[in-house]
Amino acid sequence: MKYYHSIGPSPATARFFIAEKGLDIELVTLDLMKGENREPAHLERNPLGQLPVLELDDGTRITESIAICETLEELFPTPPLIGTTLEERAETRMWTQRVNLGIAYPLLKAFQFGPGRVVYGSRTYTNPETVAGLTGLAFYHLEWLDRHVSDQFLCGPRFTLADILLFSFVTFADSHGNPIDKKLKRVWSWIERVEARPTMKRL
Amino acid sequence: MKYYHSIGPSPATARFFIAEKGLDIELVTLDLMKGENREPAHLERNPLGQLPVLELDDGTRITESIAICETLEELFPTPPLIGTTLEERAETRMWTQRVNLGIAYPLLKAFQFGPGRVVYGSRTYTNPETVAGLTGLAFYHLEWLDRHVSDQFLCGPRFTLADILLFSFVTFADSHGNPIDKKLKRVWSWIERVEARPTMKRL
Repeated sequence: MKYYHSIGPSPATARFFIAEKGLDIELVTLDLMKGENREPAHLERNPLGQLPVLELDDGTRITESIAICETLEELFPTPPLIGTTLEERAETRMWTQRVNLGIAYPLLKAFQFGPGRVVYGSRTYTNPETVAGLTGLAFYHLEWLDRHVSDQFLCGPRFTLADILLFSFVTFADSHGNPIDKKLKRVWSWIERVEARPTMKRL
Repeated sequence: MKYYHSIGPSPATARFFIAEKGLDIELVTLDLMKGENREPAHLERNPLGQLPVLELDDGTRITESIAICETLEELFPTPPLIGTTLEERAETRMWTQRVNLGIAYPLLKAFQFGPGRVVYGSRTYTNPETVAGLTGLAFYHLEWLDRHVSDQFLCGPRFTLADILLFSFVTFADSHGNPIDKKLKRVWSWIERVEARPTMKRL
């Protein structure tokens, strides 16, 4: 099995997931800045030219961080990062989608359309007039989260994929042009709890 | 088990999923236009005030269409709409996320920030300056899809959650202010194939 990754929050998500599982998977690093992910060899792995990609031993290629993490959870259920019961998995998937749609994706596009446009402008769709709205959308949901996040993790006592996804994207945004407001005290306290784990490092 | 739903593409996604599975689940319809989903009874079900919500017999409440469909697939695996093997599930989840992030969510927000603002403006974050960029983002991915969609369904011969999700959002957009360009011939041919199923109706 091979995990193709690069800098950036999407590849970090499944990389943190692999580290939390304690898995020994071959990592293949592509140079995003040089555009190695837009070369024919990678377009064959993922016709969208994006990273990450998980390549199974039979050659099956899986893209999209959440699909990759779901697959790794099935292959290596311990320690659980999605869940061991129907209710746990449902709760994790609910929080993962809330984070993904409301926060992670808007922050990613705000970066690609804004400070990242020097790299992404020639590679994919960008629209600088949309940066303020995408940032506003993400922060609307971060403020909502600040009122609803538990004193532990997104799914209470369980540290899950939802936490990993949120951590990757908010710490990336915070250090790449979209600082997370210090008034979001409960979100910051959650960031510190996640960061205390040996596998998790702010992007 | 109860499924709380309303008009709109997100509730339609899991409703189509339920219909394709042939399940007899109690449907509870809320009046979105009157804002029943923003009343205390519903905020207790989902503090984001959104629909749909699946309520299990033990009282567990699950929001987010994809999390609901994953849960229904676990409870009622036949007919499979996510997959019966690891590789099938991985492929479905990959396509579901591609559709969700690249097409469905941008189209939903383009509607809420644009023609739907008369309803959503007082309920959640909206930003009319962002409509063009969100629409552009969705159509960039629809054009990509037009080059990559198979002559059958998104996962080849298998009709899956990814098709249901895409169908709900593109047909909703098409009839609510964001017409799907007729030049996207392969996407339109796919719409017609999906629509030929007895359970699927354009929104």
